[in-house]
Amino acid sequence: MSTTHSETAIIRIHCPDQRGIVARVTDFIHRNNGNIVALDQHTDRDEGRFFMRIEWELHGFGLEKDQIEPAFQFAIATPCKMQWKLHFSGYKARMAIFVSKLSHCLYDILSRYQSGELNVEIPLVISNHKDLEEVVKKFGIQFVHIPITAATKEEQEKKELELLKEHKIDFLVLARYMQVLSQSFVDNYPERVINIHHSFLPAFVGAKPYHAAYERGVKIIGATSHYVTSELDAGPIIEQDVARITHHDSVEKLIQKGRDIEKIVLSRAVMAHIDRKTLVYKNKTILFQ
Amino acid sequence: MSTTHSETAIIRIHCPDQRGIVARVTDFIHRNNGNIVALDQHTDRDEGRFFMRIEWELHGFGLEKDQIEPAFQFAIATPCKMQWKLHFSGYKARMAIFVSKLSHCLYDILSRYQSGELNVEIPLVISNHKDLEEVVKKFGIQFVHIPITAATKEEQEKKELELLKEHKIDFLVLARYMQVLSQSFVDNYPERVINIHHSFLPAFVGAKPYHAAYERGVKIIGATSHYVTSELDAGPIIEQDVARITHHDSVEKLIQKGRDIEKIVLSRAVMAHIDRKTLVYKNKTILFQ
Amino acid sequence: MSTTHSETAIIRIHCPDQRGIVARVTDFIHRNNGNIVALDQHTDRDEGRFFMRIEWELHGFGLEKDQIEPAFQFAIATPCKMQWKLHFSGYKARMAIFVSKLSHCLYDILSRYQSGELNVEIPLVISNHKDLEEVVKKFGIQFVHIPITAATKEEQEKKELELLKEHKIDFLVLARYMQVLSQSFVDNYPERVINIHHSFLPAFVGAKPYHAAYERGVKIIGATSHYVTSELDAGPIIEQDVARITHHDSVEKLIQKGRDIEKIVLSRAVMAHIDRKTLVYKNKTILFQ
Amino acid sequence: MSTTHSETAIIRIHCPDQRGIVARVTDFIHRNNGNIVALDQHTDRDEGRFFMRIEWELHGFGLEKDQIEPAFQFAIATPCKMQWKLHFSGYKARMAIFVSKLSHCLYDILSRYQSGELNVEIPLVISNHKDLEEVVKKFGIQFVHIPITAATKEEQEKKELELLKEHKIDFLVLARYMQVLSQSFVDNYPERVINIHHSFLPAFVGAKPYHAAYERGVKIIGATSHYVTSELDAGPIIEQDVARITHHDSVEKLIQKGRDIEKIVLSRAVMAHIDRKTLVYKNKTILFQ
Repeated sequence: MSTTHSETAIIRIHCPDQRGIVARVTDFIHRNNGNIVALDQHTDRDEGRFFMRIEWELHGFGLEKDQIEPAFQFAIATPCKMQWKLHFSGYKARMAIFVSKLSHCLYDILSRYQSGELNVEIPLVISNHKDLEEVVKKFGIQFVHIPITAATKEEQEKKELELLKEHKIDFLVLARYMQVLSQSFVDNYPERVINIHHSFLPAFVGAKPYHAAYERGVKIIGATSHYVTSELDAGPIIEQDVARITHHDSVEKLIQKGRDIEKIVLSRAVMAHIDRKTLVYKNKTILFQ
Repeated sequence: MSTTHSETAIIRIHCPDQRGIVARVTDFIHRNNGNIVALDQHTDRDEGRFFMRIEWELHGFGLEKDQIEPAFQFAIATPCKMQWKLHFSGYKARMAIFVSKLSHCLYDILSRYQSGELNVEIPLVISNHKDLEEVVKKFGIQFVHIPITAATKEEQEKKELELLKEHKIDFLVLARYMQVLSQSFVDNYPERVINIHHSFLPAFVGAKPYHAAYERGVKIIGATSHYVTSELDAGPIIEQDVARITHHDSVEKLIQKGRDIEKIVLSRAVMAHIDRKTLVYKNKTILFQ
Repeated sequence: MSTTHSETAIIRIHCPDQRGIVARVTDFIHRNNGNIVALDQHTDRDEGRFFMRIEWELHGFGLEKDQIEPAFQFAIATPCKMQWKLHFSGYKARMAIFVSKLSHCLYDILSRYQSGELNVEIPLVISNHKDLEEVVKKFGIQFVHIPITAATKEEQEKKELELLKEHKIDFLVLARYMQVLSQSFVDNYPERVINIHHSFLPAFVGAKPYHAAYERGVKIIGATSHYVTSELDAGPIIEQDVARITHHDSVEKLIQKGRDIEKIVLSRAVMAHIDRKTLVYKNKTILFQ
Repeated sequence: MSTTHSETAIIRIHCPDQRGIVARVTDFIHRNNGNIVALDQHTDRDEGRFFMRIEWELHGFGLEKDQIEPAFQFAIATPCKMQWKLHFSGYKARMAIFVSKLSHCLYDILSRYQSGELNVEIPLVISNHKDLEEVVKKFGIQFVHIPITAATKEEQEKKELELLKEHKIDFLVLARYMQVLSQSFVDNYPERVINIHHSFLPAFVGAKPYHAAYERGVKIIGATSHYVTSELDAGPIIEQDVARITHHDSVEKLIQKGRDIEKIVLSRAVMAHIDRKTLVYKNKTILFQ
């Protein structure tokens, strides 16, 4: 169930745990002559909840693309009380990046984008500072400077939302964007704003986590990518990684070592989101294979 | 699909890749009123081969234990050209340990055994040296000293095989056993002899890998657990792990740091084997979840 | 500056940062014909503080063992305003272990002890439960059962302190001891009580950290060994390590995976302490090479 | 001994192990009123060889920059039979990059360069293909296309050497350059050509290491940065790192996961070289702190 070259359909499901779900779902695809290329499922026993991601080739499939949703809803989703989403690999999601002054995460994403690693369109980068304008333009992407102060925040966020709508943006990536988004802003993109926090959450929530890590004298630092929710740094975690440090490392050195973890962790989370491998339930992220 | 307390049945399968296998297998269990507690599958596109491990609760299942094998063979395995194995979690496999002089892997396994971590019986430890006799006896396990020389090897291995048969041993663990088993010996336990090699294979095959790693000036050392085959250190890899070293580390220090990786890697491999989570195909080990 | 077989002297120093300290200390040893086998130093620029560990062979050294302290104090330590400690590798420190019911850390330490990995004497294991009595006795070590309730704590800790004094214990290791030691107890062993906490501190301080990690949905778990101070789980960190988990892992599975990190992290911390490679300053632990 | 803002002098030394070296070297700096900001040393007991890196602030130092070399040579290096090098942090080394078609390592280096992470000048990128010309030009760096065939290799390498000389290049970085440099070419830059090999050396030397890793069924892949010598992939290792893989990962997935390790490992090696923290002795690299 590895790479495939024809277009695929992807369904992500969660529903009350019950007998026979895998049989019903796989049978639906099988009866319509679909060739499954990936299947991963999980049962949360404590919650009594079932989760599944299934991907199959559209080539030769017995249903047209627009027939899949109603057929599956009727035959499987409704009787099994499923919440579910359908995607097609041929659709390139549209992603916007928010940055402030630090370039490492931005470069990491844009260089992957340019070399074709990411199945996505990036029409827009928004920043509250002008520092990274040249970097963004290098990659031929539109850069929009929207400065933010406490006084202008509401109005500027409105401007950002209009821009996002205008560019038909599907999800946002905060690549070390040093502003807290308002609750009403985030509500427009539930489970569709990905942030990188420069600590091993839940340790060192909030500002200056490297300074806090240095003060505490930890022997390992980390970075955490998560979906943004109303509570600061408390959204569902997508990916984390760590690096070993020693007493020799100053705060500046922690910041330097941290950059490499941040950019890799954020890019991995973005790739999982693009490939429709994440599913959020009760503030946790299931990461399908 | 996590822990369960009633007895379970486990089937591991491989067969030519074909449409509808997951549907057929899960439907078989579903129709007989089985509750699946774990399902993991994999398709090797290059080989055109499908692999699956499925585990379900026997409580309430519509077939008796001795009916499962013929029913599954007839309905699924034969038409799908499957090679497959059935196990019941209620059966405690019988495991023998081979050691020489080093105690760290032995202690790690025996302390897990004694604290109930391993669903296994260990009736027997065999050694070509007497050094670890006291350690083994501490744990109330029979220790048999079978010294080996080039001249006596054939005869002594015969004696070992008799002992293993007598104790109804299902599989063997070489816990830093410093003897190469003969081909004919290994043939008695195909994919059932687990070794720990003290290097990151395929680097540093053979004797004295820490000395070789030191000479080469590597920055990371490793350990590898694998099933033993006729070719030295070339069997299917079950588990590997690594540790960072520096130029300060002497060969003695590499040996010391390596011990901790060896014991953890070997124990992880043994636990995967006990839980029927491994499947060997063409000299590679699939490690199910 | 690796292993050496003759007895060595070890000095650990901290003092205000000032020019020429390394020159003065190394010159002191050089002039007395000492052969340095390890030297590691660190300057904390923010604190303006200098730290050093130096180890040299006593064989051929120009001063007798009992002359070193006064000579170094007079020539170097007093003029440089040093705080320092002198140890000899020939002295085996005496260590007591406190346990409750879990055996994995205890086994890991005792098996290293028995195989000669630890340059230490372990005359005594104290527990508030009887569960591990047999394990301890296997290794020929005295086991003392001292149950503790809120009502008896003060009195029982007094009994423990007497036992420790009687056995001339130098430092204590809490190998998953599930009791909080009183402030007055800890005051008897400043920077000499080593604990293992089953989380990646400062995340998940206090009870049931694996449950908390599960609830938060982290992707990596950890363990932390630290010196015990008056504040719970807030003492200077000696060593940490982590393991990757997935959404498949139940709390029970986190506990199981965690055991392997806990035992390795605690043993590494104990070994660093035994080898006099730790130095605490302002609630951080410097870990010399 | 952390970051400092004034210019520093750096000396790297190796010599026969002998008593009093640290005292002599530190005394030399102390007597001339130097403030040491970093000191790291190592003794290889097997080789009887001593290694040291020492860095001190030039501000307030009693010797002029051009006096240091003769003074140190006369007072310390000659009597101690040292091989040694002196550098000043104010000098920006000049680095050339060689690439072929893959952009990930190139992007990682150039984005660090542009954001000021690397204390270096990069006047030139040479490639045997034109694919990355646009990437290089984005960063305002000269791109030179020098195609190579077996027939033209000698002549083209001569052209490259002239370019390197013309640009006063100090050292070269092969950022996934898919050509083997001739012995005579390498001889021009001993210990000054840094390569990234996409395997955990010494496993999988030579071409297509990810394919070989896939074939062998390893559970961990790696990348290795080393100085180039006459023997393929056998030069002194500077840095290595690894990533865990599973049986689900196809060769393409190994290549994708490997890219992230390759770029981080190569950049770390380049940074260590730039900061004069490497020292090669008998085909091993000492990595100072």
